[in-house]
Amino acid sequence: MKVTILHGNIVSAPELGKLDITENGYLVAEDGIIVGVYETLPEKYAGCEVEDYGDKLVFQTFSDMHLHAPQYAMLGMGMDMPLIDWLNTYTFPTEAHFADTEMARKIYKQLAHELIANGTTRVVMFSSLHRESTLILMEELEKAGVTGYVGKVNMDRNGGENYQETTEESMEETIKWLEQCNFEHIKPIITPRFTPTCTNELMAFLGKLAKEKNLPIQSHLSENTGELAWVAELHPECKQYWETYDIYDLWNDKTVMAHCVWSDERERKAIKDAGVWIAHCGDSNLNLISGYMPVREMLNEGLRVTLGSDIAGGDRLSMFAVTASTIRGSKARRIMDNWQSEFLSVPEGYYLGTSAAAEFFGEKPGFAAGNPLHAIVLTDDKLPAVRELTVQERFERCIYRRQPDAVQVVWSAGRKVYTAE
Amino acid sequence: MKVTILHGNIVSAPELGKLDITENGYLVAEDGIIVGVYETLPEKYAGCEVEDYGDKLVFQTFSDMHLHAPQYAMLGMGMDMPLIDWLNTYTFPTEAHFADTEMARKIYKQLAHELIANGTTRVVMFSSLHRESTLILMEELEKAGVTGYVGKVNMDRNGGENYQETTEESMEETIKWLEQCNFEHIKPIITPRFTPTCTNELMAFLGKLAKEKNLPIQSHLSENTGELAWVAELHPECKQYWETYDIYDLWNDKTVMAHCVWSDERERKAIKDAGVWIAHCGDSNLNLISGYMPVREMLNEGLRVTLGSDIAGGDRLSMFAVTASTIRGSKARRIMDNWQSEFLSVPEGYYLGTSAAAEFFGEKPGFAAGNPLHAIVLTDDKLPAVRELTVQERFERCIYRRQPDAVQVVWSAGRKVYTAE
Repeated sequence: MKVTILHGNIVSAPELGKLDITENGYLVAEDGIIVGVYETLPEKYAGCEVEDYGDKLVFQTFSDMHLHAPQYAMLGMGMDMPLIDWLNTYTFPTEAHFADTEMARKIYKQLAHELIANGTTRVVMFSSLHRESTLILMEELEKAGVTGYVGKVNMDRNGGENYQETTEESMEETIKWLEQCNFEHIKPIITPRFTPTCTNELMAFLGKLAKEKNLPIQSHLSENTGELAWVAELHPECKQYWETYDIYDLWNDKTVMAHCVWSDERERKAIKDAGVWIAHCGDSNLNLISGYMPVREMLNEGLRVTLGSDIAGGDRLSMFAVTASTIRGSKARRIMDNWQSEFLSVPEGYYLGTSAAAEFFGEKPGFAAGNPLHAIVLTDDKLPAVRELTVQERFERCIYRRQPDAVQVVWSAGRKVYTAE
Repeated sequence: MKVTILHGNIVSAPELGKLDITENGYLVAEDGIIVGVYETLPEKYAGCEVEDYGDKLVFQTFSDMHLHAPQYAMLGMGMDMPLIDWLNTYTFPTEAHFADTEMARKIYKQLAHELIANGTTRVVMFSSLHRESTLILMEELEKAGVTGYVGKVNMDRNGGENYQETTEESMEETIKWLEQCNFEHIKPIITPRFTPTCTNELMAFLGKLAKEKNLPIQSHLSENTGELAWVAELHPECKQYWETYDIYDLWNDKTVMAHCVWSDERERKAIKDAGVWIAHCGDSNLNLISGYMPVREMLNEGLRVTLGSDIAGGDRLSMFAVTASTIRGSKARRIMDNWQSEFLSVPEGYYLGTSAAAEFFGEKPGFAAGNPLHAIVLTDDKLPAVRELTVQERFERCIYRRQPDAVQVVWSAGRKVYTAE
């Protein structure tokens, strides 16, 4: 049995708004599975090697619950355009390039490294239409130490000339892709891009496939009002957007829906009843001026809200930045709500970026016993201060601000996957 | 005569919304003063040495028109508190520590370096109450290559027990400080913190002083509604907040007012009539949930809108980040305005962060002939792309996203002040 012991100031979020801080503590794992967090090291580990991080901070890693891998190549571009123009001018043409597997290899390798270097060890991710490049993406993530789910995207309508499959191609390639997926930490997820780009026939096929193979599902829901109108036009038989997924068995407690900006009371009830996961992508909501998700209201209603960078609608891959941005966004939302909704505190933002998705990955919130060890070791020794700071203050500052070499070590599923140079 | 020639892809903002892009161009200065930007090098410079930056980008540097130097030590902390609690719990106690000149030296040296390393070469900055530390701040900025204005803060009421001067002290120390200011590129600016912390007697003294010595002025205006109510209570003789500055001659075309979130039509007219400069601090507005300045409306009205990081109400010192954030903020404002106000484009954001303040510093917008040479050289050679990007796309991406060693060289007032390691 391999024992791993991290020593440092350990900060975890066991529930929304609550921080567990163990100063000078020990985070212990056996064979990569967390046993506990201790103020003093239990005697049974007395002879074991300790990874001593001294006064450094030990955080949970982040889960990025919605991002588009090929759009990594266009991060921070085309942001003056509204959603549909941006999709047609930037996004689809960029994704089309990933037919080139050599290019895919190079760009996905860089993406995987940047994720790990920023402490993102779990993802729920869109690839492109291309089976081969999707497998390359999964391989590069696996090699870098990222865990989670990746989906080959399906779209057989409204993709433009150069970026669309026939219904038959889409089905065949998806089946082939699933047969070829063989990774330890990166698993497949069924990925209809969104209702407007998938025919009913394709949706029905994907729903059936997800059910048969017991696979999770990801897509987009109620991002902006133009999209809502388009979906209503395409599906006069459905009262609301979510039903276009539900009627095809693409709506259950293993479904992640990005955005949900415009989900009204009825749609939110359907989300709750089905146990659907929400990936809140605040940067993207603002960059594309989609509206802004009422994050507090949804939390109050008991919905399962997680965070996504949504690159490249979002312009930042680091989930530290996304967490800070989500907090700031909740404050913008408070202003929009005429100061009637509460903002997210820093501990709440951290919970949403880390623990909120735990159950989706079959885990418990925080550094709970039984979870695989995912941890970031952070240093802040070059940041100025006028007095000694508490660990909570240092924690809070690290969410907002990190020195260039802040991320020192990253552990993912029990393995040390990153060490700062 | 010393000739400086920068060769690269030169991007400047000569007016709001307009970009001048000279690919493979030459930016020429004589004795540190810009002569022009050329597609081919004029013959008269044929024998001169060229700083050849190849395919790199040459940007204007940024002007940070509102920030609090001592709050650099608390950047990213206490952000779950509203303005007045945050001031009393974090800000005033932090600033009080700057009585310690040794600490001030260390922290201000780091601040000055971080400003330059991020391409901020012009500032309008608050120090603390302390004369000596303010002089140290000015010296460290001067040494690092930052130019602009720094003010010793005045406050003789409502500062709390440990952070307040008597009226007499405040006056005497200000006079002494002005006598001791002797820097080439960093000049003094009169700095009543804001109306609630300055007695009428002190305000009258500062207005008189500014007038006599022809000094610029900086303060805060209409940041949040609680503050507005407080000012109204303190000054029943004034109809509006701005008048509390105006009656003491602290309101003219060399005055920079931070925030102006709640300035209504009448106050905005007073701003315009006096030629007062607005420092828009969007990050701070959101972090402290003050409200959000209607930036487009103010630009449409012809007001002089510039940008400030407002550390530590803002949590980011880099004006690249502040510019991206200002654009995003204008989109939040568009949502708040029910899609009735226009957002800022990337070229507009860049203009606000760079050229908008030119006249305040006695210059013209863009890389205009006659301006001192301020320029940032940026590389983006490690950022991925699926095709060759235009210079405008690369420019836009650099506003949103930069690789770790992106800032390669910084020029300030004709001098090369930073080179990446």
